[in-house]
Amino acid sequence: MNFLEKKILEEAIVLEESILKVDHFINQQLDIEILRYIGQQFATHFSDKAITKILTVEASGIAFALATALNMGDIPVVFAKKGLSKLNSDDYSAVVYSFTRKQNTNIWVNKKYIKAQDKILIIDDFLANGSAVSGLIEIGTAAGAQISGIGIVIEKSFQGGRAVIEEKGYSVFSLARIASLANNQIVMAE
Amino acid sequence: MNFLEKKILEEAIVLEESILKVDHFINQQLDIEILRYIGQQFATHFSDKAITKILTVEASGIAFALATALNMGDIPVVFAKKGLSKLNSDDYSAVVYSFTRKQNTNIWVNKKYIKAQDKILIIDDFLANGSAVSGLIEIGTAAGAQISGIGIVIEKSFQGGRAVIEEKGYSVFSLARIASLANNQIVMAE
Repeated sequence: MNFLEKKILEEAIVLEESILKVDHFINQQLDIEILRYIGQQFATHFSDKAITKILTVEASGIAFALATALNMGDIPVVFAKKGLSKLNSDDYSAVVYSFTRKQNTNIWVNKKYIKAQDKILIIDDFLANGSAVSGLIEIGTAAGAQISGIGIVIEKSFQGGRAVIEEKGYSVFSLARIASLANNQIVMAE
Repeated sequence: MNFLEKKILEEAIVLEESILKVDHFINQQLDIEILRYIGQQFATHFSDKAITKILTVEASGIAFALATALNMGDIPVVFAKKGLSKLNSDDYSAVVYSFTRKQNTNIWVNKKYIKAQDKILIIDDFLANGSAVSGLIEIGTAAGAQISGIGIVIEKSFQGGRAVIEEKGYSVFSLARIASLANNQIVMAE
């Protein structure tokens, strides 16, 4: 069991058998020690991919994308913004469905920040149903860039996200994989 | 002139004599070199304040708060979220007015993440009219914590933010102070 999985087992709280509360080190308060660990793990795992840009989505993904970039030779981080893009803005966009909030959200990146020659590493905090990562893949491929890696901090393996992404032809690297939250118990995947 | 001011003068774009476009290194793409610089500058400036927590607001503030934390002995970052707080959540909140968007936004932090004994460093990307920083001060003081420093990446000195914060009894440390954007020319404060 790795450092992140241990922290999740010891400190995360389960709500309604599907929601993992990790606000106190991931989603509202950032624990810098765990953040450093996450950045180092992603940087090591994707070190042979010649990544030129890290792509994430605001807000929770930014810290992990940045922690990774700081360990990967200072390559730029680009974060997709949520909501409607600005007037006169020339963007790549995608619609992302949040199962937690039960609503669609538009996400967008200005075309200046992803180019056809980019090799993109997508980083996000959670993989549940795969909608956010699918949106980021859509944005990257619309630019003609190569999606060279997908790194997830916490994967809820009991939801369909991994299959959705793998069906598109991409592999997913997750630092912690939750097999089940049934009965409000956290069970890690083998 | 410092590294950040030089980058702003060379690369930022002025829109409508009041909007400074720094999307390509601050607001949508993060330039890691400038981010490291900003983190080091804040960490050095506030090194004698015995800071226990860095407070910012999503999304653009997160990267700079984190860069600072990484240089300050790994103290936690807490970011206020925008929008309504969640059901059954026990929060400190404040209303922030965005002059750019001409609307009020609620920001909130769960009460667990700021305590009366905390010495808080507030970090944000922009200081314009001071509404976001005022909201963060309101949240910190509601918790009984001490606001021990306020660090701003880019201050628009021709707007009223600094005076608003100083009237509350706090000082502001800004890495770049823009005196004017009139005629779409960037003029740094002396």
